[in-house]
Amino acid sequence: MNPIDIIAKKRDGQELTREEIEFFVQGYTRGEIADYQASAWLMAVYLNGMTERETYDLTVAMARSGTTLDLKEIVPFSVDKHSTGGVGDKVSLVVAPIVAACGVPVAKMTGRGLGFSGGTIDKLESIPGYRTDLSESEFKAQLREIGIVLTGQSVDLAPADRKLYALRDVTATVESTPLIVSSIMSKKLASGADAIVLDVKVGRGAFMKTLEQAEELAHAMVHLGRQAGRRITALISDMNQPLGWAVGNALEVREAINTLHEGGPADFRGHCVVVAAEMLVLAGKAQDTSEALTLAMETLSSGLAWQKFRELVEAQGGDVRYIEDSDRLPQARLIKPVPAPRSGYLAALDAAEVGMAVVDLGGGRLRKGDPIDHGVGIIVHYKVGELVQKDTPLFTIYANQRERLEAAEARVLAAHTFSDTPVPRLPLFYKCIAQ
Amino acid sequence: MNPIDIIAKKRDGQELTREEIEFFVQGYTRGEIADYQASAWLMAVYLNGMTERETYDLTVAMARSGTTLDLKEIVPFSVDKHSTGGVGDKVSLVVAPIVAACGVPVAKMTGRGLGFSGGTIDKLESIPGYRTDLSESEFKAQLREIGIVLTGQSVDLAPADRKLYALRDVTATVESTPLIVSSIMSKKLASGADAIVLDVKVGRGAFMKTLEQAEELAHAMVHLGRQAGRRITALISDMNQPLGWAVGNALEVREAINTLHEGGPADFRGHCVVVAAEMLVLAGKAQDTSEALTLAMETLSSGLAWQKFRELVEAQGGDVRYIEDSDRLPQARLIKPVPAPRSGYLAALDAAEVGMAVVDLGGGRLRKGDPIDHGVGIIVHYKVGELVQKDTPLFTIYANQRERLEAAEARVLAAHTFSDTPVPRLPLFYKCIAQ
Repeated sequence: MNPIDIIAKKRDGQELTREEIEFFVQGYTRGEIADYQASAWLMAVYLNGMTERETYDLTVAMARSGTTLDLKEIVPFSVDKHSTGGVGDKVSLVVAPIVAACGVPVAKMTGRGLGFSGGTIDKLESIPGYRTDLSESEFKAQLREIGIVLTGQSVDLAPADRKLYALRDVTATVESTPLIVSSIMSKKLASGADAIVLDVKVGRGAFMKTLEQAEELAHAMVHLGRQAGRRITALISDMNQPLGWAVGNALEVREAINTLHEGGPADFRGHCVVVAAEMLVLAGKAQDTSEALTLAMETLSSGLAWQKFRELVEAQGGDVRYIEDSDRLPQARLIKPVPAPRSGYLAALDAAEVGMAVVDLGGGRLRKGDPIDHGVGIIVHYKVGELVQKDTPLFTIYANQRERLEAAEARVLAAHTFSDTPVPRLPLFYKCIAQ
Repeated sequence: MNPIDIIAKKRDGQELTREEIEFFVQGYTRGEIADYQASAWLMAVYLNGMTERETYDLTVAMARSGTTLDLKEIVPFSVDKHSTGGVGDKVSLVVAPIVAACGVPVAKMTGRGLGFSGGTIDKLESIPGYRTDLSESEFKAQLREIGIVLTGQSVDLAPADRKLYALRDVTATVESTPLIVSSIMSKKLASGADAIVLDVKVGRGAFMKTLEQAEELAHAMVHLGRQAGRRITALISDMNQPLGWAVGNALEVREAINTLHEGGPADFRGHCVVVAAEMLVLAGKAQDTSEALTLAMETLSSGLAWQKFRELVEAQGGDVRYIEDSDRLPQARLIKPVPAPRSGYLAALDAAEVGMAVVDLGGGRLRKGDPIDHGVGIIVHYKVGELVQKDTPLFTIYANQRERLEAAEARVLAAHTFSDTPVPRLPLFYKCIAQ
């Protein structure tokens, strides 16, 4: 076998064997196959696609390219969730504590933000002291002790994906279903959870722009997860407007804390309860979704989820004084409520534009490794369909530089569209694709 | 402009602007665009093609990526030839002297062999002392003095092509018409000839396997050459069996010398006269092809072409004693005539297999830069259609190692196919595509 023949076979639209895919993934991970060969192959995959069988073999080969965690030695059953990324998506901060508080272990390795899309690790690092670099043994010890971990990808999970993703990013080969599926699912398979709920975002502030694309991706991932012996459900959720009100790291942590305390925006609260319920169903903690919803809501309202979140922060070294009084979290110097330029129904609120405005403020990054400012962000005060009154605050900007504040103000204002006639609210979810 | 957008545009099947193509070629040549981006782009070009306009702009951008020679200051009109490569193709060694002896300057930078395909530079280096690394000023001085140069690509002609070709070779993106056309024509445009005869080979021992592919390539190159203001003709010639009898560097030089002296194989002699005639027509030395054929044949028969070849070798530092007595040229130690295993008409003689047998003997290379043994090779004694008598020599092997000789013997024997009934001879040429 040689890499050129494998590239040529995919170039010619033929189906690769499992052995060929393994040879290519292993060779690339070890550096024996060059970046320029991998990128030609990625373009051929992008243009000629992959069969379900090829996608499965690619995913498994990538999952096996590094450490694979075996959590069975720690807990009998664990559950994970994965979001395809969006704006204001602080769901893990609330859902993981709900599910763990119900007695279902949640072991989650999560990522950083890039472009308009935020990352859970960045959000958690708003809490002084919170460690996101747990070692494998720390990860396992904490899972055994308190049944919840939210950390970065400190273990060498699916290094093939890390290399391939970085390459796809600079060779225009990102938006390919088999490549997206294998990228997401290889990490999920390697990280050892028995059940997975996928939160597939669709809309302006998501990578998938149409429901059709999102459904194709969700079906492919659910199918693949089942083949790999996992319990798996995908929810397709709206990401045309930001989720909740807060966008920006510390602002989102504060909103999550409020939600864990009977407060928080209704859409975000509803979203979290549904995701948690699906995780509880997969874990066998409830007979059906309606029983699971009741359990999730009760766990949230009773304060048990909050207690679990507090335990999590403490276990990972975070200073709990900052979450007990969330006004102590990092906050930007300049705070400006921006009045609505007119009255009317909010017709659209472009999530990608709000996400990019937060990047402009310093709260996100355009390139991997860029530092971020945890205190800045945007709080929107209206959701699509709500009636806005002229001159009342439309959104509030948290900034540390005057010019950046002004640029973000213009950008977020332009992201709001108004209508004189009533506009329907956006749904939270479009579909649930169960196993 | 950025490389990722340009890759994405070609990936999506859109037409690139001239500015985008120039940006990409210049950026890649300077090392600002990475190999892995260029290879993704090459695969997108391979799969989505290029319009005539894009191919032209790509060729011109590649031609301008390095030195472009202006020969007008040296000679009023010069002519070049280019073969797409084959087995036993020593045509330049005879054609360039014929044309130069007719008073038409021939300035040719030529290449080395790779795989089954030989290279003129390797052949010339069989002559002790012959320099193939002339500087630009030596090149021009010799062209002025004796009107003929046959050297390697010592000037930095179309460095974009050198980089792109090396990349295509390892990323399964070689066989693409726009990429082949731009690779060949960028060097021809940069090397400054006013007229070009293309010898496009088709068959088992050529890169183009079908007449249809060869015609497509020939038409594209002729069209492009005309657009660039060159006089240009393409001949499509047979390469199913080796050209002439000799395959192997010194053996081919000896065959060329015999041809320059009233000897040599009839097919090779005929081929050279036709190519030379087309060059003379383009240079305006003859009214039409039949007048040019007469002129070419006379120049060959009169010994004037031989005199010009001798001048060439002397000017480039070659020891003329080796060409005056060609038995002095490097010759392998082991010489074995292999008897025909049966009688019959020769039905096929696979040129690629003969070429690879010579590579196996050490007379060619699998990788650029590999050293070669000038003395080894194969002489075939029959052409397709000829009647072979059992036990008479079918071919002769020139080898320096016993095991290699045996391997080549088996390979070349298997390359011969016999028939009990008469088989037509193969044509020399299939088509002439004139401007």
